[in-house]
This record gives sequence, structure tokens and C-alpha cells, in this order.
Amino acid sequence: MPTIQDVARLARVSPSSVSNALNGRTQRMRQETFERIQKAIKQLNYQPNQIARHLKTGQLPILGMLVPSTANPSFGELAVAIESVAQKMYNYRLLVCNTQRDTAIESAMLNDLISLGIKVVIVNSSLADTAHLSLAAKKGVTIISYDTRPDSMTPLPYDHVYPDSHMTGWLAANHLIAHGHQHLALVKPAGRTISRHEKTAGFIHAAHMARPKIKTTIIEVPTTQSYGDTELGKIGFEAAHEIAINPSRPTGVVAINDMIAIGLMAGLRQHNLQIPRDVSVIGMDNIPTTEFTWPPLTTMAMPVQAMATTIVERALQHIQTPHTLPDVFCFTPTLLERQSVSTALSSHEG
Amino acid sequence: MPTIQDVARLARVSPSSVSNALNGRTQRMRQETFERIQKAIKQLNYQPNQIARHLKTGQLPILGMLVPSTANPSFGELAVAIESVAQKMYNYRLLVCNTQRDTAIESAMLNDLISLGIKVVIVNSSLADTAHLSLAAKKGVTIISYDTRPDSMTPLPYDHVYPDSHMTGWLAANHLIAHGHQHLALVKPAGRTISRHEKTAGFIHAAHMARPKIKTTIIEVPTTQSYGDTELGKIGFEAAHEIAINPSRPTGVVAINDMIAIGLMAGLRQHNLQIPRDVSVIGMDNIPTTEFTWPPLTTMAMPVQAMATTIVERALQHIQTPHTLPDVFCFTPTLLERQSVSTALSSHEG
Repeated sequence: MPTIQDVARLARVSPSSVSNALNGRTQRMRQETFERIQKAIKQLNYQPNQIARHLKTGQLPILGMLVPSTANPSFGELAVAIESVAQKMYNYRLLVCNTQRDTAIESAMLNDLISLGIKVVIVNSSLADTAHLSLAAKKGVTIISYDTRPDSMTPLPYDHVYPDSHMTGWLAANHLIAHGHQHLALVKPAGRTISRHEKTAGFIHAAHMARPKIKTTIIEVPTTQSYGDTELGKIGFEAAHEIAINPSRPTGVVAINDMIAIGLMAGLRQHNLQIPRDVSVIGMDNIPTTEFTWPPLTTMAMPVQAMATTIVERALQHIQTPHTLPDVFCFTPTLLERQSVSTALSSHEG
Repeated sequence: MPTIQDVARLARVSPSSVSNALNGRTQRMRQETFERIQKAIKQLNYQPNQIARHLKTGQLPILGMLVPSTANPSFGELAVAIESVAQKMYNYRLLVCNTQRDTAIESAMLNDLISLGIKVVIVNSSLADTAHLSLAAKKGVTIISYDTRPDSMTPLPYDHVYPDSHMTGWLAANHLIAHGHQHLALVKPAGRTISRHEKTAGFIHAAHMARPKIKTTIIEVPTTQSYGDTELGKIGFEAAHEIAINPSRPTGVVAINDMIAIGLMAGLRQHNLQIPRDVSVIGMDNIPTTEFTWPPLTTMAMPVQAMATTIVERALQHIQTPHTLPDVFCFTPTLLERQSVSTALSSHEG
């Protein structure tokens, strides 16, 4: 295997010149020298040891990522999409940590990644407390926040990439309203996160704007563990019971994520309610399973690939151009019609 | 916030004695000194900075983990279970990497983790080529292999924790045979991994042992990407088509994992085949969604919590007692009966 010394010898330069060429420090290098180094690299088929190379420059080719829980397929899928873009386009790799939606754990894991020398951390979180993120950003760590709209009252401390949660809630409710539903429910786990709050606000906004006015019911199911992502299906299943026993029950239900929608549909079946004939259901996230549920789930699809690409591009932008100013990237969800929503029958209105 | 110096002052010892006590280096310490340090720690409510402490001793409180893809909920779930045990019992954290079932990526990520100073890596893999794992183990890295039975021909290079895949295949087939099915199919993605090979062998073994003899069909669906975990549902959906158009179609189908089973059931519905009336289906993994599918999926449940606990305990054992000999831990799957399997009707035998 050729070494950097072999390349230097063949190009008649010092090893540090080869290193400069490899790391893009070519401002002071003559074009002729640079071309000679490139030719030697090609001729010897020299493969620089990525890790060793980056360790020297203080830049590991590794991005960190914090997610609430890989037990929720939507987070696992985004992590895989980001990893895939990072790997294929930039030969960067991704380290993922589960934060369990706990500020203390999220903060500790962020510090772990920083201790390991990682300079860019993608934070998939919607917790209200972001002091630890701002602090890390002030210390020079590149934070890319995913899933949260920035607070417009403060100067932007770091990049924000997010799907428009307000619009997600609005579009979902509106789809049901357009199908004649006059009593809508929204199902969500207890515990406030920013993105859930926004989705709920969008849902209510759509109902308030409709004429005639729409009745809305918010069903908030308490979680038994702090760590709710493994019990999302059960939350939907329980909410179905509440809907089924309601004498003037809603005919259209928005689930705040697809795992809840899947549990909800199972619970409604348990009560001999047919979907969509008796109750229309719409989910959010478009996780792979929803294509194969019974009935196939109408849901809000997020532009996962586009968001993953933006996140990785921003990460590399910050690495290659220090002092890049933080920016905001908002993505628009789209409604994916399948078979879980139909026109409301007036007879179902209690 | 009290420092190690404050503790040392109160206990009338040097800071390095406090550090020795904290790190269990107490062989040469007098019992009285040790107790004085403990008392001072308690009195001051001193919380040692875990990372800083471990960095000094060369032991980061972090375990690494390689998984094929967090897009497959079964891997995401195991990662969360391991993370939870590590965090709660030992205050260790977990870094997860997606290897995309690619030996080159798996090997590169293993090197990344080692470069970061991580000493224990849990490798959830079933690739046939394990040279990079043996090499890392020889260099002193603790490897804990998950999901693969060790090769009995070589001395054991590192720990193996795995569910008995042969038994998984055997029990699944046998459940269908016990329900009178005389023609069984097994659906799996193309591409050989050790655990899939074992499951298939168990399935065939059960069929061969049955009297009267059972007909078996192996349906191997090619994947369009090297990176198959996001398309498992589609694999099942395609296999359903092959089953439906077969004039002497199998009446009982084993899917090699639950995501495939979910796609398979959707595909069978598409062909107006009812589950389990027309075709019985059994999955493997018991991912959370299977409780809520239509019909609820009978599947092979893995003892995820017990395996996660063993993996973390072994990791800590190797950290606390260097030169611990590698060992093997085999876990037994259990059949979880739901509603996707029923007695075969002889009229369905073409």
C-alpha cells in the first residue's frame, strides 16, 4: 500500500505539501506543483487514511446525531437517509444516539460527542429547553437542529432544518374537512414538544377557518413511561376506545404520527368500526409500514431525502467554511392519499 | 459545585487518592482512608465528571454498536433496549452506526469507533466475512457479536450473543404443520446472511421430519438496492403475487422477518386472499407494529430485554476484568400466537 511519503517522493515535494493538497490548503501552492501531486496520487493509486488524515487536521469525517428513539421508525429512517447521503457524497459517517426525549440525557450525549472530538451534531429534538444547544454552538460546535421552528424572538444561534409542522396539521385537518367531516379528533401523547404543539395549532386553525364551523376534540393519552416511543401503538389503541364509546363520536381522526395511527386503526377494528366507512383516519410521517396497513394509510409525507441532503450539505458547509452564518430551511409536507379517508356520512353525526 | 480538590481537602488526602478511590484502585489503600474519602464525597455531594474521569483512565463510558439499518424497527428496538440498560444500570451511553449490510462499511465504522477511543463494540451483523472483527479483537478491542452462531471450527475469538435462528425457523414451520398445512413457503430477500441461512435450515428441517412429508417452497426475492432494509415490505408484497398466482399455492407462509410479513399480508389482500382463511402467515421478530396489523400477526418473539441485559453485562465484565475469556450466549425464541394462522382447509390444496 503506497504511503504519503511515496506520493511525496514521486511528486518531488515534501509530505506536508501532499497533506496540504489533500486538505484543500492550496492557496499558496503553485498550480504546477498541485498537478504534480495529483498525478502522483493517481499513478500510485494512493488512498489516504481518512481517519488519520482528518485526525491531523482536527476534523474527523464523522457527524454526530441525536434522535429521540430509533424504536420509532421515522427517526431511524431519517438517520439512515442522512447516513447514506453523508457516506456517498462526502465519505462522512454518522454516529447516532438515543436521547429518550430527556433534556438531561440529550445534554449528556451532546457532551459525549463533543468529548470525542466531533464538531458537527445534528439534533433531532423538539424539546422546549435548548440552552445546552446554544451553549455548544457558542463554543464552536456546529449544531443543526432538526424538527423545530426557530424562536423568532432571539437571534438565530444555529441552523434549523424542519418540516412545516403547522402546515402538516393544517393540511391533515383540511383533507378531512374537504371530505365533509364536521367533528374531528386529534390524537397525541401527553407531554409537550414544539413540533406537536405546532401540528395541533395547525389542526385547530383549519377547523376554525372552516364554514360551517367544525367541532374538534383533542385526545391526549398519558404515557406510562417517560420513554414513550415504544408505546405509540398502544396510545393509538387506547384513543380508539375513547372515540368508540363516545355517543357523538368524531368521524375524522388525525393521528399525530403514523405509529399512533396504526394502533388507532387496530383499536377501532376491535370496536367493530370500519375504516374509512365509520371513521376516517389520517397519519403523519409516511413510515414504510403505512403502505401496507389495512386499509393503506392516508398520511402526511415529509420530504425525507431533501431534508437529509440539506442537513448534510449544511454540515459540510460549516466544516469547509467556518463562521458560516446560521440559516433556516423549512420544508413543505405533502398529503399522500391512500385508502383510510372517505366522505363523511351524515348518519354518523350523533 | 464541589471539585475533586474539595473532596481531597476534606478527606485530608491527595486528589490522586480520591481519583484512585473513584476508579476502584484501592488495593494499596488503607480501609480507613477509603472510608474517609467516601464520607467526604457523600458530605459534599460530589459528582465526578464521568467523561473527564474516564478519559483519564482511558475508558470512555460509551459503548459502540454497529447495526445493519435503523430503518428496520427490529434493530432500532434492540439498540434502544441496550442503550436503556447501559444508561440505567451503569451510566454508560451507546453510539449507533448503520452499516448497510456492507462488509467494507462495517469495517470502516468499526475503525472509526476504535479511532475515537471506544473499547467495546457490539456488532449486530450476520455477514459471513468476520475477519475485521477477529482482527479488532486481537488488537484488544472487545467485540460482542449479536445475531450469529459462532463457527465451531475455530477457537472463539470474541463473545457471541444470539437467538437460536435454527430453532426460530423450526418452531415457525412446526406451528404451521401442527395446523395441518402440507405445503409451506418461506419468504426471504436474496443475499445470504448467516442468521437467514440458519432460519431457512430450521424451516426445512421441520418439514423433512414431518409425517406425512411436507412440501416446501423457498421464495427468494431479489432486492433492487444493496441496502435492502427500507424495501422489506415491498419484498413481502412481491412474494404475495408469486404465491397468489401459483395454482398449487402454499397454504402456510413463513416470512423471515416481520416487515416482510406485513408487506406479504398486504399483497395477499390485494389478490383477494384472506388471512388466515386462505393463507396462514407467520413472521419473525415481534416488532411493535405486529400487535396492530390486520390480522394481528403470529410471530416468533425474541427475548430482547434479556439479550440486551446480557450484552451490556458482558461489555462491563470485559471492561472491569480484562482478559475475560470469550463466551457464547444462546437465547430461545418463543412463538407468539395472534390471529394470522388457522387450520388448513384441504380444499385449498390445489
